[in-house]
Amino acid sequence: MTGEVDRDAVLKVARLGQQAAVTLRTLTRQQKDQALHAIADAIEQSTDLIVEANGIDVAAAIAAATDPAIIDRLTLNRERLRAIADAVRDVASLSDPVGEVVRGYTVPNGLEIRQVRVPMGVVGMIYEARPNVTVDAAALCLKSGNAVLLRGSSSAHNSNRILVDVMRSALEVTHVPADAISLVPGTSHDSVKYLMTARGLVDVLIPRGGAGLIASVVEGSTVPVIETGVGNCHVYIDEHADVDKAVAILVNAKTQRVSVCNAAETFLVHASIAERFVPRALSALKERGVTIHGDQRMQAYAADAAINCAPVTNDDWAAEYYSLDIAGGIVDSLDDALGHIRRWSSGHTEAIVSDSARSIQRFIAGVDCAAIMVNASTRFTDGSEFGFGAEIGISTQKLHARGPMGLSELTSTTYIVTGDGQIRG
Amino acid sequence: MTGEVDRDAVLKVARLGQQAAVTLRTLTRQQKDQALHAIADAIEQSTDLIVEANGIDVAAAIAAATDPAIIDRLTLNRERLRAIADAVRDVASLSDPVGEVVRGYTVPNGLEIRQVRVPMGVVGMIYEARPNVTVDAAALCLKSGNAVLLRGSSSAHNSNRILVDVMRSALEVTHVPADAISLVPGTSHDSVKYLMTARGLVDVLIPRGGAGLIASVVEGSTVPVIETGVGNCHVYIDEHADVDKAVAILVNAKTQRVSVCNAAETFLVHASIAERFVPRALSALKERGVTIHGDQRMQAYAADAAINCAPVTNDDWAAEYYSLDIAGGIVDSLDDALGHIRRWSSGHTEAIVSDSARSIQRFIAGVDCAAIMVNASTRFTDGSEFGFGAEIGISTQKLHARGPMGLSELTSTTYIVTGDGQIRG
Repeated sequence: MTGEVDRDAVLKVARLGQQAAVTLRTLTRQQKDQALHAIADAIEQSTDLIVEANGIDVAAAIAAATDPAIIDRLTLNRERLRAIADAVRDVASLSDPVGEVVRGYTVPNGLEIRQVRVPMGVVGMIYEARPNVTVDAAALCLKSGNAVLLRGSSSAHNSNRILVDVMRSALEVTHVPADAISLVPGTSHDSVKYLMTARGLVDVLIPRGGAGLIASVVEGSTVPVIETGVGNCHVYIDEHADVDKAVAILVNAKTQRVSVCNAAETFLVHASIAERFVPRALSALKERGVTIHGDQRMQAYAADAAINCAPVTNDDWAAEYYSLDIAGGIVDSLDDALGHIRRWSSGHTEAIVSDSARSIQRFIAGVDCAAIMVNASTRFTDGSEFGFGAEIGISTQKLHARGPMGLSELTSTTYIVTGDGQIRG
Repeated sequence: MTGEVDRDAVLKVARLGQQAAVTLRTLTRQQKDQALHAIADAIEQSTDLIVEANGIDVAAAIAAATDPAIIDRLTLNRERLRAIADAVRDVASLSDPVGEVVRGYTVPNGLEIRQVRVPMGVVGMIYEARPNVTVDAAALCLKSGNAVLLRGSSSAHNSNRILVDVMRSALEVTHVPADAISLVPGTSHDSVKYLMTARGLVDVLIPRGGAGLIASVVEGSTVPVIETGVGNCHVYIDEHADVDKAVAILVNAKTQRVSVCNAAETFLVHASIAERFVPRALSALKERGVTIHGDQRMQAYAADAAINCAPVTNDDWAAEYYSLDIAGGIVDSLDDALGHIRRWSSGHTEAIVSDSARSIQRFIAGVDCAAIMVNASTRFTDGSEFGFGAEIGISTQKLHARGPMGLSELTSTTYIVTGDGQIRG
């Protein structure tokens, strides 16, 4: 399947998905959960086969001198496959979003109006590197009654193909058609292009990956897209902050895991608290190996504490480092902090540390993003931390879903209007 | 402003809208309602001025031999302006969607999570003909805390310009910045193109108009789009239908107003009830001046009743007539009806007339659309019939909003997470 692929091959898979979706939308929770358990069992039973196919991808990545962190994320082993299978069982244990009545009421002429969750239909996933996304996405889509078209990265193609084969085989003895889960043929950009323009066949596209991938899907797609996951998150330390909490939150937001979209990339400190906060913060960040890129006043504090501090540039303010780097500045007011955030924010997560109700209220009113953390680490913007059980991605756009997306966000709704012969006068 | 316009002029208006949106999101309901009343009063007080400007558009339309129905929709007079002003006051009386808590709960680590409605930011409206949409859209966007960029059709340009001028002037003595309501400069397709690609400046585009307009926006936009209003609606008369109700519903769905998206364009009759239903239906439709396009069996019933019936073509099944025409066919089963609807539906509204709980359940499970009418006319898919008070359009896509869209659908959400120093372990 590597290399060229024609449009018809991609559309054929989409059409099969659409047919499967007709069946999927009518299945009961029991039937879907049984299929999810069959998938989980099959993945565990096929461990050797999967690890072998994954080995081909890993060997190719090593030969291409790929970053060891990426190779680690690509690698599957017995333990990881067990975790992947367990995640599928976790999805089975979640309640079924389909059929949930979102609103229900009766209007004056007696019509009963219910807005009910229904599957989207066909979901296209375009994603990079990690093969566990292949299984996670398939499980979440199946549970929410959607067919899924999976277009992973070419570097994980052998892993993705065996995982999809194993899942499809597992479905054969269930009520779920095998075409509910398909790999999009082809590994060139063409196959992505055909998927993005399959209007009428694909109901929504979810790109997961770097900013470049997401931008290219948004630019080129005629299918509705949910953008996910790019995060330039700020932590603002207000003049009324508790300094101990502020240091702990900043360090956690920056260092607890650096390669994720909800890690902090910039901190802004109110000038009135800078003398008490900044020396402690810089030293705590330094201890964790963080490189600081500071404005002039930040540099002065750093010099006093004999801590290295590079001069901050606009590229730093704009950066999603995904590394042990942080940009930092001193602001003279909450409004200055809000102005900075409005200019540089990617609309993911913004945090304020403050004990002032007034500051918190103004911060909430002044930022425009998926999640606002008040006296908590930015790292909490996450489907499982929010109690969703599983997450298909974190939306950073404003339509449909914003923030962590779970099963509900993979559904649309239909209004069911029940009458007794009503006509409009 | 007619003719060529450069990209910078369009982007400048969008940027001013974005600045206004920063203020708008912080306003109270009281401040917004006061502005809406100021707008309503100003429209009534400026009646002569508006009618005069509208006269230029109407004269041009007459000179261009425009369809009289379109000229009628374009025309403004004292009575219509009073109705437009009253609609703005109605919007003021609706509750504020901003700040509504959609979900709220506390997770095990003590973080309080609230999902709260917030304005989208900047809404772009691209629409045809009727100048009342200019005021309706501005009022709904203002109430929901959004700035609006209005791009009406060139044929209503003088009317739209004076209406926007009057509204902006009215805002000057209120808390709402005038740039909350702007006309997009230019009347050529270029200005639409610049608006559609103003990513980062415009948060959502809502095209309202014919299928061609909507398709061109969807194809060319890099800004998220909510598609509205194309409707090829079916009425299925089940074998277990009450014939009296079925005739009344079909006639109402087709004829109560023909030029609207929720009018019926096709009826499908179960063969078992055809003999009792079809002759009565054909005669009732004929009485209302409806032209029938039928399949062979429908033609045979028509011939027996001496009623004209053109042979139906695929173009008829696909047509949104928006006229006194209807396509009709006899089906041998509910499944055949569902197959037909799946093939030709535009996903707007599908109706079943039946007294069988089993048929109704199967119909609901088998169609995929914004609204399903059970024993009621398709004409009820409408924001005011649903009790929304006002409507910005009817979404026929699956993301974000599906069906009639009111004030809630003009909002996004933000998660506000409140902690006491929580960090992630």
